[in-house]
Amino acid sequence: MNRVYNFSAGPAVLPEEVLKKAASEMLNYGGTGMSVMEMSHRSKAYETIIEEAEADLRSLMKIPDNYKVLFLQGGASLQFAAIPMNLFKNKVGDYIVTGQWSKKAYEEAKLYGTANCIASSQDKTFSYIPDCSDLPVSENADYVYICENNTIYGTKFKNLPNTKGKTLVADISSCFLSEPIDVTKYGVIYGGVQKNVGPAGVVIVIIREDLITEDVLPGTPTMMKYKIQADAHSLYNTPPTYGIYICGKVFKWLKKLGGLEAMKVVNEEKAAILYDFLDSSRLFKGTVVKKDRSLMNVPFITGSDELDALFIKEAKAAGFENLKGHRSVGGMRASIYNAMPIEGVEKLVQFMKKFEEEHK
Amino acid sequence: MNRVYNFSAGPAVLPEEVLKKAASEMLNYGGTGMSVMEMSHRSKAYETIIEEAEADLRSLMKIPDNYKVLFLQGGASLQFAAIPMNLFKNKVGDYIVTGQWSKKAYEEAKLYGTANCIASSQDKTFSYIPDCSDLPVSENADYVYICENNTIYGTKFKNLPNTKGKTLVADISSCFLSEPIDVTKYGVIYGGVQKNVGPAGVVIVIIREDLITEDVLPGTPTMMKYKIQADAHSLYNTPPTYGIYICGKVFKWLKKLGGLEAMKVVNEEKAAILYDFLDSSRLFKGTVVKKDRSLMNVPFITGSDELDALFIKEAKAAGFENLKGHRSVGGMRASIYNAMPIEGVEKLVQFMKKFEEEHK
Repeated sequence: MNRVYNFSAGPAVLPEEVLKKAASEMLNYGGTGMSVMEMSHRSKAYETIIEEAEADLRSLMKIPDNYKVLFLQGGASLQFAAIPMNLFKNKVGDYIVTGQWSKKAYEEAKLYGTANCIASSQDKTFSYIPDCSDLPVSENADYVYICENNTIYGTKFKNLPNTKGKTLVADISSCFLSEPIDVTKYGVIYGGVQKNVGPAGVVIVIIREDLITEDVLPGTPTMMKYKIQADAHSLYNTPPTYGIYICGKVFKWLKKLGGLEAMKVVNEEKAAILYDFLDSSRLFKGTVVKKDRSLMNVPFITGSDELDALFIKEAKAAGFENLKGHRSVGGMRASIYNAMPIEGVEKLVQFMKKFEEEHK
Repeated sequence: MNRVYNFSAGPAVLPEEVLKKAASEMLNYGGTGMSVMEMSHRSKAYETIIEEAEADLRSLMKIPDNYKVLFLQGGASLQFAAIPMNLFKNKVGDYIVTGQWSKKAYEEAKLYGTANCIASSQDKTFSYIPDCSDLPVSENADYVYICENNTIYGTKFKNLPNTKGKTLVADISSCFLSEPIDVTKYGVIYGGVQKNVGPAGVVIVIIREDLITEDVLPGTPTMMKYKIQADAHSLYNTPPTYGIYICGKVFKWLKKLGGLEAMKVVNEEKAAILYDFLDSSRLFKGTVVKKDRSLMNVPFITGSDELDALFIKEAKAAGFENLKGHRSVGGMRASIYNAMPIEGVEKLVQFMKKFEEEHK
């Protein structure tokens, strides 16, 4: 078995022991005589899987009882519409635009009312997080929206914005479960799982109960109503059963490793190895303002498009996959999610040192 | 490895060789050094997977070039909204209501305009398909809608309705790939794959190109616009990559077995074994008008709730799983999809005979 070091931004590396266990259960899950893929979502065996997944996630993230956890479909992109459809009462959303994904969410909200961009870092190619301590939050804003970790640009909110009492809505797709967060500071936390949690096709929404109402915009599809999904415990229709099962295994893996506190220590250690090297290198350099650097996505460049391309090619040949930066920004990006082992980062840095020696 | 005979209505049995192959590739797909779950949806390896899946499906169903194939999320239930959102120009949809799912689609369409129920079999608990040769199709109907095979009730349209020139839209979730169909008779064919094709979390939409327009209802989420998804070849955002990969394997399995013509022969043979027994039994009887019987879902009863419950219990103990009828109708139901081997049906009938002997 020859596994590569996979630095993909998403879908992304998963824990090897989770994959091994899934493979071993593929034809017969827990003595049921069938694959989880073949299991009715209303069977006892599957109910246990989804209930344990929710319980483990609640325990990992310390989700208070007055928040619902929904396992949905359609990715973050469908939530860009679901959020205003469900949360717009005054039909006003304030958006902090720190990258392509928050910008898409902002544009989508305009379909349903007034979306205000109250801060942006587009002036410097989204390479920093704006000061959000005193923003012009709208008096009648239904919420303030952020994308907490920006996969493409490698930035992260180290402090949550001052929403001046308004509900905070956060897309945490690319920092999901990477460190502890205080759920009570948010009204809605959501993320596609395909970066740090599981396979593509599941989006998890964590939402405070008072925000779940029947009073949604006219024309909201039934499937997109949080109330319908919450009342049905994510079983209104057939959920993405196998994806949820894999997420559940990742939750158990995280618990075994010591939970999010322990994961944060490892993630900081891994990121430091890479950032320390970038800060000392004479060839490579990071593209993000230091204070706003993501623990998960580390973009870097050599300053030469030719050298970038050569580096990506040689790295691939050496078993370091998916180091190419997003097509919109170029350069390189190493996504070092929870499941990336520390050796992967150490070996990458060794390889970068060698490349630097050869090309300085 | 002790596999049961799984008669679940969905998620449902999958071909054992597909599951075995998926298990063997779980940690390293085709020498890539990663699982398909870990693969960027924009990688060359994954592009090949989704492109081959589409090509194989086109070949199996003989889909003409002027139809697009979309791999989407949200299940049939999200399509209940997507169809009127995309297809309503006069905002009129004519619905033939032959069960719970077409009824839900009909109710959902009312959110977006006028939905007319132009025929129904609700008067006899959906145990038949109404005569659809001369229905009062609305002059300005944007489409006529059917659910072609009714999973819960075990009925199937043996003849498509006379739509009087209007576009036919069909939910084929529970008869997907069970036999050849003439795609040109439909404007939109769609189905959740979790019954006869793959794991839950993928819905496939096959749509004639002239029905894909930018002129959709205001407020249609970007993710639900067929034009956006068609232009992006189902890669507008991260699709349910692993589910599509499994579907692709099922398509190859079907091709190897001889395609849909061969599958129809097997399915007719399997269904005949069960229906012939039901017609001759003094204990069990089918609940559906003979001419409208589904090849896929076979509901039956003993006439006694106690005996039904005992049968389900004893069948389970003997390795025949998920024979309980849908909670809304009771009794029994054997779903005998493509992946149910003929021995499964033969052994079930042997077991039913034995039960009949013991309880006549």
